[in-house]
Amino acid sequence: MRKFMLIAILVATLAPRINAENGYRLWLRYEPLETTQQNALKERIRQVVIPEQSSVMQSAAAELTKALPAMLQTPIQRAQSLNAPGIVVITATHPYAKQLGLRQDMSTLGEEGYLLRTVKHQNKMMVVVAGKNDAGALYGTYALLRLLQTGNDLTNLNVREAPSFAHRLLNHWDNLNGTVERGYAGHSIWWNVNLNADSIIARHEDYARANASIGINGTVLNNVNATPQMLTSEYLEKVAVIAGRLRPYHIKVYLSINFSSPKELGGIENSDPLNPQVAQWWKEKATEIYRLIPDFGGFLVKANSEGLPGPQDYGRTHADGANMLADALKPHGGLVMWRAFVYNPTPEDRAKQAYSEFKPLDGQFRDNVIVQVKNGPIDFQPREPFSPMFGAMEKTPLMMEFQITQEYLGHSNHLVYLAPMYKEVLDADTYCKGTGSTVAKTLDGSIYPHQHTAIAGVSNIGRDANWCGHDIAQSNWYAYGRLAWNHQLTSEQIADEWVRMTFSNQAEVVTPISSMMMASHQTCVDYSMPLGLHHIMGWDHHYGPEPWTEFPGARADWLPQYYHQASASGLGFDRTDKGSNATAQYAEPLRSQLNDATTCPEGYLLWFHHLPWDYPMKSGRTLWHELIERYHVGTNNVRGFQRTWDSMEGMVDAERFKAVQYKLKIQARDAIWWRDACLLYFQTFSKRPIPLEYERPIHDLNELKQIKLDMGHHN
Amino acid sequence: MRKFMLIAILVATLAPRINAENGYRLWLRYEPLETTQQNALKERIRQVVIPEQSSVMQSAAAELTKALPAMLQTPIQRAQSLNAPGIVVITATHPYAKQLGLRQDMSTLGEEGYLLRTVKHQNKMMVVVAGKNDAGALYGTYALLRLLQTGNDLTNLNVREAPSFAHRLLNHWDNLNGTVERGYAGHSIWWNVNLNADSIIARHEDYARANASIGINGTVLNNVNATPQMLTSEYLEKVAVIAGRLRPYHIKVYLSINFSSPKELGGIENSDPLNPQVAQWWKEKATEIYRLIPDFGGFLVKANSEGLPGPQDYGRTHADGANMLADALKPHGGLVMWRAFVYNPTPEDRAKQAYSEFKPLDGQFRDNVIVQVKNGPIDFQPREPFSPMFGAMEKTPLMMEFQITQEYLGHSNHLVYLAPMYKEVLDADTYCKGTGSTVAKTLDGSIYPHQHTAIAGVSNIGRDANWCGHDIAQSNWYAYGRLAWNHQLTSEQIADEWVRMTFSNQAEVVTPISSMMMASHQTCVDYSMPLGLHHIMGWDHHYGPEPWTEFPGARADWLPQYYHQASASGLGFDRTDKGSNATAQYAEPLRSQLNDATTCPEGYLLWFHHLPWDYPMKSGRTLWHELIERYHVGTNNVRGFQRTWDSMEGMVDAERFKAVQYKLKIQARDAIWWRDACLLYFQTFSKRPIPLEYERPIHDLNELKQIKLDMGHHN
Repeated sequence: MRKFMLIAILVATLAPRINAENGYRLWLRYEPLETTQQNALKERIRQVVIPEQSSVMQSAAAELTKALPAMLQTPIQRAQSLNAPGIVVITATHPYAKQLGLRQDMSTLGEEGYLLRTVKHQNKMMVVVAGKNDAGALYGTYALLRLLQTGNDLTNLNVREAPSFAHRLLNHWDNLNGTVERGYAGHSIWWNVNLNADSIIARHEDYARANASIGINGTVLNNVNATPQMLTSEYLEKVAVIAGRLRPYHIKVYLSINFSSPKELGGIENSDPLNPQVAQWWKEKATEIYRLIPDFGGFLVKANSEGLPGPQDYGRTHADGANMLADALKPHGGLVMWRAFVYNPTPEDRAKQAYSEFKPLDGQFRDNVIVQVKNGPIDFQPREPFSPMFGAMEKTPLMMEFQITQEYLGHSNHLVYLAPMYKEVLDADTYCKGTGSTVAKTLDGSIYPHQHTAIAGVSNIGRDANWCGHDIAQSNWYAYGRLAWNHQLTSEQIADEWVRMTFSNQAEVVTPISSMMMASHQTCVDYSMPLGLHHIMGWDHHYGPEPWTEFPGARADWLPQYYHQASASGLGFDRTDKGSNATAQYAEPLRSQLNDATTCPEGYLLWFHHLPWDYPMKSGRTLWHELIERYHVGTNNVRGFQRTWDSMEGMVDAERFKAVQYKLKIQARDAIWWRDACLLYFQTFSKRPIPLEYERPIHDLNELKQIKLDMGHHN
Repeated sequence: MRKFMLIAILVATLAPRINAENGYRLWLRYEPLETTQQNALKERIRQVVIPEQSSVMQSAAAELTKALPAMLQTPIQRAQSLNAPGIVVITATHPYAKQLGLRQDMSTLGEEGYLLRTVKHQNKMMVVVAGKNDAGALYGTYALLRLLQTGNDLTNLNVREAPSFAHRLLNHWDNLNGTVERGYAGHSIWWNVNLNADSIIARHEDYARANASIGINGTVLNNVNATPQMLTSEYLEKVAVIAGRLRPYHIKVYLSINFSSPKELGGIENSDPLNPQVAQWWKEKATEIYRLIPDFGGFLVKANSEGLPGPQDYGRTHADGANMLADALKPHGGLVMWRAFVYNPTPEDRAKQAYSEFKPLDGQFRDNVIVQVKNGPIDFQPREPFSPMFGAMEKTPLMMEFQITQEYLGHSNHLVYLAPMYKEVLDADTYCKGTGSTVAKTLDGSIYPHQHTAIAGVSNIGRDANWCGHDIAQSNWYAYGRLAWNHQLTSEQIADEWVRMTFSNQAEVVTPISSMMMASHQTCVDYSMPLGLHHIMGWDHHYGPEPWTEFPGARADWLPQYYHQASASGLGFDRTDKGSNATAQYAEPLRSQLNDATTCPEGYLLWFHHLPWDYPMKSGRTLWHELIERYHVGTNNVRGFQRTWDSMEGMVDAERFKAVQYKLKIQARDAIWWRDACLLYFQTFSKRPIPLEYERPIHDLNELKQIKLDMGHHN
């Protein structure tokens, strides 16, 4: 009690509206509410009752304890009984559930789901957070706090939520030396750190709080390009420490494994999945892991991809490899997440290879194997059509792999809000079971009822003070989590929530910033790879334009010209039945729609079609002219973002204002760099002028070709 | 005869309208005329008669021989008598002058003047070029060719011209090692070259032709920062060779001398001008020079300036030094051009020092001394008020020193047509003898009748194929020469002539390019140093913005902060009677007009006044807002130049089109660099926002401060 009061008073003395901020607090800032809202709530919330004692329930209690006094600017009593109006947090099994008349509703509630209700109890209004289990109660608690943070009062609450996917993971591409592959926010928060340093302990707890607040319940701690070393007892003990810190927030840890671990660590002659010694080694390794981490989540596997070892090294299939691991984890309830990001140095169109390899294996996987598929058939490009695997694997559970880190979208320098891109993929219709068979429905169990449903996002988190490098990039972590919980949320809703919690509830702040965010993904596509162009960036660091790049000895399908196919005859990759026939991997009527340039959405046009420079676009412009239009629209939009952001001066804290303002300057320069580089390069093929109504290039193509970025750890 | 016909036929086979061009031919391209004009002229010009034999007359003949067949696309007979219609070139003394009835007119013609007339002679129309002397005839010949090149027919010619200034010089800041100080077009055409290489011989002849075509009659071959070595016999022999090549085009050579030459070369204990040995040494050196170069022009002297030796080293005055040299040259008819660009490390406002030092010496100079004064009181800034010395020295002939090379105006990267700046100074009213006492009239003898009148331009010529680095920079060489000949020409006339001769006579080419040129100087002022700001560029290389620069040990008056005086209280250098009182060096009513911020022209406002950031400008904007406006107008105008130039594609030759297009890209980037650097730097003092209607900065001030240019030979 005394301890609580102390915290409460401390927190209640928080500073005024605009503090200096470094972004560390993310969307859990719990700033004081508007006075009117405060006063209304002080009446309604006299106490908090959290009768259950599990560590997860205590996390919920701790969060309320931290948040309420700060937002209401008054101490809040923690009480043991319902003798005063306030907040009650319980699980379905608690007697209060019956007393408050919620048992019926809760019996039909989904796993980890929750109810938020305002209930009259002995003439007192109670704000009830009722979870299906303690995880649900925790999620409900954060939901309640979000309602307060975003300016709602708590009258007539009637919220009923359950997650879209059972397993909602972050994938950290963190290496054991502390670097982060495609990470742009500093070094790893997991590896090459002093696990017992106060700052790291705090990081791990705040990481867990932030993830729990959006419903993340699993995290893969190491890079999919995994080293066998990960499974040594030295490192497994570190994993156990981390797992212990995440457990109170209902977050399971997973590990990426290297398929050659038995050979490398066990001294076995090979790692052939059909070799009994190999299977045995994995069984023993699983036992060792679960002894340390009873709730260990399972393995993420990148095999036979980009030079990593895998079952094909021994003439076995991906199914052979995945199943062998699944058998080792099965007794412990562990999962295998087997990545479909595979492509071999064959003449076949890279966009077709994942489907070609995995489709024939449908039905051959154990029931604790999930195949993890990137959203598009290539590799996290600014815009890709959805992977044709979605909807095509009836007997195998698939999970979406989204990228949160902006590998191909300006790293942590460019402001790009990714929810619209995630939604574009989730809501895309595969037609696999007729109209309305959206990608989301093929994954969430509503079309193919599998035992396991899951989703993964490649993390943009690092040790930078603001976690993500760019303050606005925090919204992509947030949006991924929110959509993993409920894929029916709109991008606008999510942006609105996030801006209110992260910056301010004032409409003069919320409206401009969220509008800017909503326009930012299309803008980035426009100034970098519009109309279905893809993979024309710097081939190694993936930052900035290099449509011209050639690299002796590099695989053709690592280099831009493989993808844009620019020539005197036109631009784009012919994936129709006249070309690589990748369109055939999609279900009808989508297949025919994509196969025909006149019906193919223009956003994917050059992805599927090679078209003449004078091809007439829907705008009435030629393809060449439309390409110019898009690059200029993108560039000018970034200038618009600068203006929008500068209009926020004084309305958001100075520290984050300056930081974002600085990044927008880089983005504005980069957009012009992309525009000039791509237009001047493609002009060498189109031989057509840039119409005089457009701003003229300010760069020389030959000089741009000389730019060699040193991205250091970025690659 | 045979030789001529050969040339004629060769030249007559010139290529079609748009050739590949590297700019080497300058404005003397002699492209075929429009067919209609050709046909009209073929009737009128059947032959050319040039009866006199001087080498200068032969130059006139050679030029006609080169030009007419090329323009008319037909051989032209060179004849000995007036028996057919055609062109006649003579001097006043030739009997034809009387026969053609011109003697009377010519008797009153000024030195080096000419008449162009169409005269009926024995029922044949003769086009007569009649010069006061052979130089006049040469200038008249080029004037006639200019009329043809710019699309005139030759009916009813009645032109009477004589030069505004007797001595019309280029100053080459060329060092004997071949580098050119503040030269941006490659190395020297004079020094560290093989004087007998064909390419150099051709360069020197074409240099002479170009200068003769605009009336230049003198050139200083070496840097004003002169080394004593210049006067060694080794180098004087080279000078004699060069003089021999320029003589047929009526161009005299001059040399910059080092005042310590007697001590350095002659082994005399000092170079005190009152030391008889020193005077004797100079007399002998003059004799040696005139033995080699009988028509040697004289000495240009930079003394006691920026560390160079001078009479003050011995307690003598500038007059003592100049007169001693004048006495040495007098017997040979040589001149001393003594530079007034002097400023000492004193606390006195640098802008006042030349006047302070020289005004007291008025009347003490020999009659073959001319004091050479830079157009403004500081140093060739993008815009300066005229030097207060103009009009103030009644008893001493002054000559204008303009800079043609763009030391402070973007070197050879920026398109800046300087005629409007030259005219602004020449037409400025000094009021020294009442209203209408323009700077030009104080120099051309009409207000102060001195024996010598002169003007100098610091050359932008180097060994680049196109002579000036930037193709459009040729127009500044041209414009300087044209104004030296006739300071009443307008900038528009000169631009129109130059574009027609250099690119095309088509209105669709002439109008856009000349309009762009006319706007270019104000544009450069706007994006670099608007409203009277000055000297805020990189302090050593003078390229790009560095208003913040500090350099340990550098003189205060070499550094930007001395000049802009930015502070919380405002911006600008107070030169009013409340400040340095530099305004007192101007005559009334100008003095009072400049001294009062409300009457001071806004183009000079911050030159003479330190004003608060909220000072109300004529536009109704505050000073801070107006500053922003100017930088943005400048930046956007450069984008307009890019658009204008790109619209010329196909209408000018591809080689120069691409070259200028490339330079305009640099200029556009540099303009934004200037805009962002200056506004963000001054904003640290003004503490005021950049209004949201303006495009946002794309650079970070601290990053801009890190830019360190390596300008190599540029400095």
